[in-house]
Amino acid sequence: MNNPFMVRAIQLSVENVHSSNGGPFGAVIVRDGKIIAENVNRVTSTNDPTAHAEVLAIRQACTKLGVFELLDCELYTSCEPCPMCLGAIYWAHISHIYFANTAEDAAEIGFDDSFIYSELKLPHAQRRIPTRQMMREEALAAFRAWQEKPDQIAYLRCRFANCMSISISATTA
Amino acid sequence: MNNPFMVRAIQLSVENVHSSNGGPFGAVIVRDGKIIAENVNRVTSTNDPTAHAEVLAIRQACTKLGVFELLDCELYTSCEPCPMCLGAIYWAHISHIYFANTAEDAAEIGFDDSFIYSELKLPHAQRRIPTRQMMREEALAAFRAWQEKPDQIAYLRCRFANCMSISISATTA
Repeated sequence: MNNPFMVRAIQLSVENVHSSNGGPFGAVIVRDGKIIAENVNRVTSTNDPTAHAEVLAIRQACTKLGVFELLDCELYTSCEPCPMCLGAIYWAHISHIYFANTAEDAAEIGFDDSFIYSELKLPHAQRRIPTRQMMREEALAAFRAWQEKPDQIAYLRCRFANCMSISISATTA
Repeated sequence: MNNPFMVRAIQLSVENVHSSNGGPFGAVIVRDGKIIAENVNRVTSTNDPTAHAEVLAIRQACTKLGVFELLDCELYTSCEPCPMCLGAIYWAHISHIYFANTAEDAAEIGFDDSFIYSELKLPHAQRRIPTRQMMREEALAAFRAWQEKPDQIAYLRCRFANCMSISISATTA
């Protein structure tokens, strides 16, 4: 069954191969049954390794709506989001994800998506990029200052983790 | 022991609490012993859920150097990168990661980092954001077109996964 939003995401992904903006990926964001943002992979043409179709579509939708969360929006993407994009989707609090190609399909044509997923599941010491912790005690100063801040914006209050919790608003201590 | 680059990342994170750009996070990128990019979390002030310190520093460094990979660069970040940022770090092929606060520390002050890590390890059906696959056969058309493209840029050729493989260059079929 053809879904018109996925048809558009796939169309974008195919067009992007020919336009040479970047990899063969397209994504659209839908709200109230209408596309409010659509984009493609632009990594190589903009020298931005974060310029995946999903990240760009999320940024575009947020700019358009003037918000930093997309609570009532759905994402249609021509390929399963990589860990970077999935993280962005969670931070944006998108409501539903629809994808077509899989991370394994992307691996087949040379993209690292599956590899990065496997790395994220490993402890630091076993990952390919050497990772080291230092100066935690000093860094906690910023977190303590944040907790004491009277006008912090609670954009990050675990909408998922604590789930019933806090709406987007400026909170007062 | 104080590392001057981490000292700077922490300083940025503390300053960001008071400047109200966003959350208490700072990051710097170092090349040849010099800081080439530094940034802070700007999610709430720019309406961009992807504007984490690491993502912004990576984008800034790539723009400055005119590249889409940061192979000989190190990242110093005041907090363990979230999955979105870690994905960006892998795509940028940064050589070393140094962090101070942990994802658990971030969870303590209300950020979703740990939760998103746990979500990424789950199969789609068990994740909090409903995720559904559709139209894979149609979407594979873009991947096939990519494989047949004579001038594809091999930015994504598994530098990690296949490791010995391909350098950044335009390849010809």
